[in-house]
Amino acid sequence: MNAAVTPFASRAPGGLDLAGTTLHGVHVADIAERLNAVEPAEAAAILLAMPAGRAVDVLDQPELVAPGAILKALPLERAVAFIQAMSSDRVAEIFRNDLSEPDRHRFVARLDGETRAALAALLAWPEHSAGAIMTTEFVSVPADWTIARTLDHVRTVERSRETVYAIYVVEPEGGRLVQAVALRRLISGDPAAPIVSAGGVRPPVSVAPGTDREEVARLIAKYNLLAVPVVDARERMLGIVTVDDVIDAMIDETTEDVQKLGGMEALGAPYPRIGFLEMIRKRAGWLSVLLIGEMLTASVMQHYEGELEKALVLTLFIPLIMSSGGNSGSQATSLIIRSLALRELGLGDWWRVALRELPTGMTLGAILGAIGMVRVVVWQKTGLYDYGEHWGLVAVTIGAALIGIVTFGSLAGSMLPFILTRLGFDPASASAPFVATLVDVSGLVIYFSIAALILRGTLL
Amino acid sequence: MNAAVTPFASRAPGGLDLAGTTLHGVHVADIAERLNAVEPAEAAAILLAMPAGRAVDVLDQPELVAPGAILKALPLERAVAFIQAMSSDRVAEIFRNDLSEPDRHRFVARLDGETRAALAALLAWPEHSAGAIMTTEFVSVPADWTIARTLDHVRTVERSRETVYAIYVVEPEGGRLVQAVALRRLISGDPAAPIVSAGGVRPPVSVAPGTDREEVARLIAKYNLLAVPVVDARERMLGIVTVDDVIDAMIDETTEDVQKLGGMEALGAPYPRIGFLEMIRKRAGWLSVLLIGEMLTASVMQHYEGELEKALVLTLFIPLIMSSGGNSGSQATSLIIRSLALRELGLGDWWRVALRELPTGMTLGAILGAIGMVRVVVWQKTGLYDYGEHWGLVAVTIGAALIGIVTFGSLAGSMLPFILTRLGFDPASASAPFVATLVDVSGLVIYFSIAALILRGTLL
Repeated sequence: MNAAVTPFASRAPGGLDLAGTTLHGVHVADIAERLNAVEPAEAAAILLAMPAGRAVDVLDQPELVAPGAILKALPLERAVAFIQAMSSDRVAEIFRNDLSEPDRHRFVARLDGETRAALAALLAWPEHSAGAIMTTEFVSVPADWTIARTLDHVRTVERSRETVYAIYVVEPEGGRLVQAVALRRLISGDPAAPIVSAGGVRPPVSVAPGTDREEVARLIAKYNLLAVPVVDARERMLGIVTVDDVIDAMIDETTEDVQKLGGMEALGAPYPRIGFLEMIRKRAGWLSVLLIGEMLTASVMQHYEGELEKALVLTLFIPLIMSSGGNSGSQATSLIIRSLALRELGLGDWWRVALRELPTGMTLGAILGAIGMVRVVVWQKTGLYDYGEHWGLVAVTIGAALIGIVTFGSLAGSMLPFILTRLGFDPASASAPFVATLVDVSGLVIYFSIAALILRGTLL
Repeated sequence: MNAAVTPFASRAPGGLDLAGTTLHGVHVADIAERLNAVEPAEAAAILLAMPAGRAVDVLDQPELVAPGAILKALPLERAVAFIQAMSSDRVAEIFRNDLSEPDRHRFVARLDGETRAALAALLAWPEHSAGAIMTTEFVSVPADWTIARTLDHVRTVERSRETVYAIYVVEPEGGRLVQAVALRRLISGDPAAPIVSAGGVRPPVSVAPGTDREEVARLIAKYNLLAVPVVDARERMLGIVTVDDVIDAMIDETTEDVQKLGGMEALGAPYPRIGFLEMIRKRAGWLSVLLIGEMLTASVMQHYEGELEKALVLTLFIPLIMSSGGNSGSQATSLIIRSLALRELGLGDWWRVALRELPTGMTLGAILGAIGMVRVVVWQKTGLYDYGEHWGLVAVTIGAALIGIVTFGSLAGSMLPFILTRLGFDPASASAPFVATLVDVSGLVIYFSIAALILRGTLL
């Protein structure tokens, strides 16, 4: 990830005087970003000074980090008016993540029936599902309309729809979705032709409301769509998920994945905006679990205390050997997590992966083992350290242990994501920590067993 | 990341008979995926059996994994015809990543002048830059046209442009980009009005050709764009980067980041399609570097050999303590890497982060230290293990060492991404391995120093 500042990155944002005098002509996404830097009360005052439509656009920006606090700082009447004008998926997101139960109630009580019903419908779907991020502001027309009539309709509703570039054609009776038509095809089509003549021969790609947003993103990416329709079990349209919602979701997912792979709970908010105690809470949990897991290493070490006393030289290489196991495990885990997410691999491919990671791990282990043996030989021969009279056997022990541990790490690291996914866990959140602990503990056992085998009768 | 298979995920793909008889009505992205499963020669035969336009569409899909091999398997005449009809950014990508120098030459020699020039222009930009992924197939009109004339133009060129939803208005003289107009606004606008009346008041967001694709993605996400124009130093249009190119780029970037955070080189191709030797090459490099770095731990251990001999009990906790340092470091690193990438933090914020990670690390260390001490006390009191007469001091040593190491890990882990970014490295690729090695080695030094302080006169 190249986070270097790119010169000439964006020409869009002008200066922004937060007093509101020069807000004209500044993109709402930039206004949202600047509002993030001030207190909610001040942000509310700035919104009130703007034309209402523009204030709504600012509140609609996912870049605005604490919209709940700003809505609470507004006079109730104005807050309710803004909420009714905002896009329903954004309101649902704010209600879900950024408002407490009493505040939600206070707002909901004042909303008109239609907004309240739309909101309730969106909130009924699980977080991160297509149903939760879809918008109900789409264009749909009956299949018996002409292109001209459809275009007239688009002109009428254009301002109130999130996108008009995809037009959904439904059965006049029953409302089943039959086709998605691109606006560009309508423009170049014969106005008198039926709308269905402008669509493709395929049934449109669609998703169920319970589909995970990552799957929606995969479909939009694969089929190069601007929006994907969300349909119920009878294939009637409930809403659409647009490409910008998907991009925002992808950015969130990547952030979550990176944080989970780093061995912590997903923060759920930008680093600079998380409070101290919240930060401790999100990080201490996994650290403690991992510490408790790693306590098994102390138990293993206690078990082999006799060997350690006899051959203290073995302890010198414990960190080296453990970390190699952990590194090879984390390589394999991150490879497989990502391949599963991209559907390059299915759950049924586990044995293919195992058959591949076994020789890969052995080869990697042999490479590392060779390096490890060279280290012992060089230190011994150059007099940097004296590993004792059996230094040759010590070198062989290190080499053999690295082969065993790297093989085990690669195999365990690649299999855990399959197992976790199968058990219904998110592989990203659990694999890295589990692999680390598993490989550390097993690594020690492998190391001491190999040492016992090779050094029996000499050092041990 | 939830990779569980979602029921009812996609209704689009029908069955695909690779003999070509039922290809009609199957989405080209699905055809591309199926072609991935067969040999290049067979894939070439299937493409030849299709209508040429559809074959070109299949070759244009980024889902097609080895287009270079397929092009080589086609008769030269046909391959050249396909290349000339494909989108220029896709051809540039294939030439860059999937064809060897002799093959590139063989094709280039047969291309017409226009295609060859467009290709050369794209290939001149660095990989992963806006210039390398842009398409030159966009719609631009002079600022003195009317809406009606623009719409007529759109109708004419619709089939040959990657997107017509964003129309770029340029100065009639000089060609400087002045405005981006959304097609939806044209449809509802007054046909006789000048095109500039349909655009916004802001200058359009634009990027330079050298801008990194991640920055392009950030702008498209922030401003909810369907495409971003790429302009030269005099603000004349060179091309556009569309939202689907950006989504593909985002997926690639996430894959690369996850793999780099896993401590390896980015694979650059799906896991199932990487050859054995290639896989070893991508993974062995970092593993070997890390192993060599970790050899410093053996040196540290050798240095403290005297202490180890006197107090073997200290060795029991080495894996525990090292892994806690590594875990806290990797948490901090992944948090900061992501925050830098999202521009939540700038390079100048390093001291704010340091001031925050110091107390965070100390608090996390205190929590882990308390757990570590409890472990020693419980094992001692329940008779699970005897840590000797000074077991109380051993417990204090473990607790204090965990505080020191977790604080150091959090601080080092959070500062390294800043340092690496500043030095021009990609923080994702280097931070995790560096942090692991740095924290392991320093962790041992901290542990033994604290032990020497606390246990001097008793065990040591």
